[in-house]
Amino acid sequence: MTQQASKLVIVTEKLLLKQIVKIIDEAGATGYTVMPAGGKGSRNVRSSGQPSVGDNFSNIKIEVLTANRDMALKISDEIAAQFFDDYSGITYICDAEVLHAHKF
Amino acid sequence: MTQQASKLVIVTEKLLLKQIVKIIDEAGATGYTVMPAGGKGSRNVRSSGQPSVGDNFSNIKIEVLTANRDMALKISDEIAAQFFDDYSGITYICDAEVLHAHKF
Amino acid sequence: MTQQASKLVIVTEKLLLKQIVKIIDEAGATGYTVMPAGGKGSRNVRSSGQPSVGDNFSNIKIEVLTANRDMALKISDEIAAQFFDDYSGITYICDAEVLHAHKF
Repeated sequence: MTQQASKLVIVTEKLLLKQIVKIIDEAGATGYTVMPAGGKGSRNVRSSGQPSVGDNFSNIKIEVLTANRDMALKISDEIAAQFFDDYSGITYICDAEVLHAHKF
Repeated sequence: MTQQASKLVIVTEKLLLKQIVKIIDEAGATGYTVMPAGGKGSRNVRSSGQPSVGDNFSNIKIEVLTANRDMALKISDEIAAQFFDDYSGITYICDAEVLHAHKF
Repeated sequence: MTQQASKLVIVTEKLLLKQIVKIIDEAGATGYTVMPAGGKGSRNVRSSGQPSVGDNFSNIKIEVLTANRDMALKISDEIAAQFFDDYSGITYICDAEVLHAHKF
């Protein structure tokens, strides 16, 4: 009864959370997980002008399990088109196998 | 000297942490990682009655590296049987390759 | 335009963050993500002498997307050589496919 899925991971700036959640919901995903994150991207700094390391978790990592790769790509394309010209961010996918969930 | 492993991921409500850790320990896993998390599941809300986004990390994400898929399935089955009728949660596995560890 | 990558994951003690970031930078990686973490390793306790669960996130999880497996191995080898005799830690890699990023 397990189900192959794509795990889409989005790491970007915290202030984008609500807008990204809206994109995820509208794509039809059944859920997502948000975690605090810091780090450094290829521009060396976040848009705030300083790197965030240690206890300064000014970024977020969002994970979305999607039933197929197409939904993951669609969400990623929309996020990149809307935000990645102006904000730091990266999206990637990994394979996952869902074991138990409410109604995944 | 690397070792193929299964990474079991459990995202659920924070109040279950101690009971889940007990299940992980009893299954013989050598360790686990716990992270704060928020998000939304397929029931739309957590059992607290409200979604948790932003700085409200009322959930946890637990990762367990197991030497084989069977141990990951056993832990997941036990957690789902004990808690997922009453609490929000999801479990999934990913492939991982352990490079360095104390005694993994 | 997606790109296969290796995701290197390092879970270790928070006090090592700056030194590990230096190793990542010197290896030529374009970025990394840092998250707060707790947990238990195969030594049962962290070097502080007590397990960290619940809200006690005294460890960190660092994720580095590298363009190839060799760079991930090089970073992992360096971290293990410098720190894993004295500190708790584990490193592992997963496959990932980068969808969008600034200049990954």
